[in-house]
Amino acid sequence: MTYSTVSINTPPPYLTLASNEKLPTILSIAGADSSGGAGIEADIKTITAHRCYAMTCITTLTAQTPVKVYGIKNTPKDVVSQILEANLKDMKCDVIKTGMLTTAAIEVLHEKLVQLGEKRPKLVVDPVLCATSCSNSAGKDVAGLIVEKISPFADVLTPKISDCFKLLGEDRIVNKLEDVFEIAKDISKVTKCSNILVKGGHIPWDDGNEKYITDVLYLGAEQKFITYKGKFVETTHTHGIGCTLASAIASNLARGYSLPQSVYGAIEYVQNAIAIGCDVTKETVKDNGPINHVYAVEIPLEKMLSDECFTASDVVAKKPVKGSLDKIPGKSFFKYLVNHPKVKPHWDSYVNHEFVKKVAEGTLDRKKFKFFIEQDYLYLLNYARISCIAGSKSPSLEDLEKELVIVDCVRNGLNQHERRLREGFGVKDPDHLQKIQRGPALRAYCRYFNDVARRGNWQELVIALNPCLMGYVHALTKIKDEVTVAEGTLYREWCDTYSSTWCHEAMLEGERLLNHILETYPPEQLDTLVTIYAEVCELEANFWTAALEYE
Amino acid sequence: MTYSTVSINTPPPYLTLASNEKLPTILSIAGADSSGGAGIEADIKTITAHRCYAMTCITTLTAQTPVKVYGIKNTPKDVVSQILEANLKDMKCDVIKTGMLTTAAIEVLHEKLVQLGEKRPKLVVDPVLCATSCSNSAGKDVAGLIVEKISPFADVLTPKISDCFKLLGEDRIVNKLEDVFEIAKDISKVTKCSNILVKGGHIPWDDGNEKYITDVLYLGAEQKFITYKGKFVETTHTHGIGCTLASAIASNLARGYSLPQSVYGAIEYVQNAIAIGCDVTKETVKDNGPINHVYAVEIPLEKMLSDECFTASDVVAKKPVKGSLDKIPGKSFFKYLVNHPKVKPHWDSYVNHEFVKKVAEGTLDRKKFKFFIEQDYLYLLNYARISCIAGSKSPSLEDLEKELVIVDCVRNGLNQHERRLREGFGVKDPDHLQKIQRGPALRAYCRYFNDVARRGNWQELVIALNPCLMGYVHALTKIKDEVTVAEGTLYREWCDTYSSTWCHEAMLEGERLLNHILETYPPEQLDTLVTIYAEVCELEANFWTAALEYE
Repeated sequence: MTYSTVSINTPPPYLTLASNEKLPTILSIAGADSSGGAGIEADIKTITAHRCYAMTCITTLTAQTPVKVYGIKNTPKDVVSQILEANLKDMKCDVIKTGMLTTAAIEVLHEKLVQLGEKRPKLVVDPVLCATSCSNSAGKDVAGLIVEKISPFADVLTPKISDCFKLLGEDRIVNKLEDVFEIAKDISKVTKCSNILVKGGHIPWDDGNEKYITDVLYLGAEQKFITYKGKFVETTHTHGIGCTLASAIASNLARGYSLPQSVYGAIEYVQNAIAIGCDVTKETVKDNGPINHVYAVEIPLEKMLSDECFTASDVVAKKPVKGSLDKIPGKSFFKYLVNHPKVKPHWDSYVNHEFVKKVAEGTLDRKKFKFFIEQDYLYLLNYARISCIAGSKSPSLEDLEKELVIVDCVRNGLNQHERRLREGFGVKDPDHLQKIQRGPALRAYCRYFNDVARRGNWQELVIALNPCLMGYVHALTKIKDEVTVAEGTLYREWCDTYSSTWCHEAMLEGERLLNHILETYPPEQLDTLVTIYAEVCELEANFWTAALEYE
Repeated sequence: MTYSTVSINTPPPYLTLASNEKLPTILSIAGADSSGGAGIEADIKTITAHRCYAMTCITTLTAQTPVKVYGIKNTPKDVVSQILEANLKDMKCDVIKTGMLTTAAIEVLHEKLVQLGEKRPKLVVDPVLCATSCSNSAGKDVAGLIVEKISPFADVLTPKISDCFKLLGEDRIVNKLEDVFEIAKDISKVTKCSNILVKGGHIPWDDGNEKYITDVLYLGAEQKFITYKGKFVETTHTHGIGCTLASAIASNLARGYSLPQSVYGAIEYVQNAIAIGCDVTKETVKDNGPINHVYAVEIPLEKMLSDECFTASDVVAKKPVKGSLDKIPGKSFFKYLVNHPKVKPHWDSYVNHEFVKKVAEGTLDRKKFKFFIEQDYLYLLNYARISCIAGSKSPSLEDLEKELVIVDCVRNGLNQHERRLREGFGVKDPDHLQKIQRGPALRAYCRYFNDVARRGNWQELVIALNPCLMGYVHALTKIKDEVTVAEGTLYREWCDTYSSTWCHEAMLEGERLLNHILETYPPEQLDTLVTIYAEVCELEANFWTAALEYE
């Protein structure tokens, strides 16, 4: 027999500042989906991922997977009644969210809503009338019952287009956005619910350029339409999106956000959950897989094991990583990266960019260059913050200090940009820099940085920060002899900056850092670094393209 | 009518690197608790908070709140069978976790386990036999059925002490830890399950000094006992802890962690969830409130609204904050803080600490001083990282750069400590610094820093970092004239460092920074800053006490 003792850490006092935390509470009334992707399971997952508290009233049990519904067992009316009664008597309830409703559940809920009067919680109604993703479908009489007994109490109704036809009792032709506006208004009339979100995620629009989707929110009291416009994502993982969207709206409302804000946050959440997806079905199941409700959730034990403040670091010995620099031809990770088939096309379009050529010839429209300088100013500000985070994740103080040297360089870059705007473009307003708006290319780039900073490790973050340095120096060194723009001009000075000896040395330091990264990174995950490098080179190229296309 | 359009951001490419993420999958077979605190709802919440994928097989529906069980409706055997069949046919399943089982569920599961043979998922069995927190209690025949049909297949069984008595068919006297070891071994024999976790969270031990709790893990194959020892937290919020613990173990196992690691992570998670708790019951409900499953979950919409990379920042105008410096007497936030009744006792015991007096007199045991220098070395390393994070959260580049100045000071401090160890203590081993172990006081302090860094904002982080600077200078300036230890000694040099003009100026800069913080912080949340300051002063005092008590 062997005996050992492990100490459990006392809960940290900072966390317990929120002791007895007032979690927003949501009661979901819906059917259960045993496979966990839709129904009340999706509701609980969504509410939990929104740091809210979920309660349940299960209207029906289904034996169900993304493949099909194998069986259904409705909950008897007296049990539904007992559950609603118990929850509303003893528990706080900020928002009620409904999904699949049985006639029993509709009647019980109606009575309760009437009885509660003005004291009733907010109500989000997802009228699950047509089977696509959420559990099974309800008949036409359920549509009628919802209109008669539930929707007049609702704060928002979230029908799909096909649900709308059932609620209206007729099909409509939808050729343009105005047709959707019309439908939303009519649904509001029919259902006596002031606010209607018509979900259009199933039907992409096509403007010739790209496919996009729209969700239309009609706010009856203000006579206002808000169109949420998103990119259409090709995927088969759509099981449970209706339930998830309504639960996310309910969670945001419960936290006190406005309806337009709540809808915004919910659509973003669902779009991310779809785009990321998850692999949880057997190989035999091809379609309609679940979405990823937990894409933003950290793994508790991973944190505990890596954090030296936890006694777990005693329990678990860290495995030393032997990196793979020796296996790289020429022992230059930089050369490996930029010649990698995943990276090369992006690297090439980045360092051979038309923008740079036009600056070097002096033919770039000054308005476009000004836009570039302004966007780059905000970019560098963000770069300084991200470098700080890279510093905080560095394995050694030496690595940390290298990141801080970068912050110093960024400060120089910012000062130069300030000067360029003042001297080159005659900017006099002292608040000018505060007023610059981020364009889409900058936003996409910063968001990428922020995500790597939040979720990635030190190596991944250093890799993400690298192409900016390397690419500028490469691009400008390449065409050094073709710079024809006159000396003393703004464009010439900008070109000279990045082909200077000083910058060249910084680039060599960058190459050494890349090798250092490779030596400390698990070889089996190398593809992650390659992908990040490729993505960031593309973001860099897009950044210059955005300036070139600026009007 | 007004019309507006909101763009939804394309999902960030970094996140989609994990496209089709392989989420660990857990099938929970348990009863539903409508109030959401225990049962299958607690399971789904826990599994979700562990970034895993939950599936369900609901054995019974309860109308239940922390007050009582109002009603029960068992799921018919054929439905249970259909659900298990469907889930195991179409879905991947890494771990099955069982809670409240009906005889129907036991029989169906048994058949399935036999049928799956070696291909069966891992199995975590929480034998819910006695009603305390998890749903309702099962009869003695259920205990017998679990022993006969389920536990021989289990990878781990997680009974409470009272469950153990039911499984053993007799009560035992538990006076000492060895009695628990004996019970665990006997349970293993009776249940034919190799690994047993005997949960002791309900019964605190008392060694005269403090109350503590133990969970004992018996690993049959290795003939090994691991005792997890934690602090007893006085609370009435214990609804659902058994379900939560077993689900957390299942989640960790599904991710591939070993059983001892999985149990460790699960206990930490539950302890935090208990300590933080949540306020979700009506005022009439006093006891047995739910624990906080989501304490580590971020609020998605909060991030989206504050992050300038999201188009939501267009939708939502930021409210400017008018801070409260004008309302503070003497306009010194520092003086306000150290005189605040919450802070003063901790500040006083910090800056008048016996440790400092003994150094100044030269009477401190050199071993204790060496321990202090070593711990402080690791502390400063962490301080540098945390300052980087404060930099990344700073509202302006100027604020960011101030944090980086601090990193420079930290580098000086580290160099001094290295020299002290080398010259003062004759340390010759070049790897000595890498070998230093963190003591409990340092761990607690660093963990606090790390939590504020992860979850707090810039102001809260600056407040947490401040007492270290202010306190050392105050403590050493106070007794400047009482320093009797000889010049040229290690102790004298240390004392002089913190009473130097340079340090005094740094302290004045720290006072200005505190005022700056107050001006930008919402006045209604001021108490948070006060509490952090008080907590950190206490951690500082404990840090010196730990050195004083070092043997």
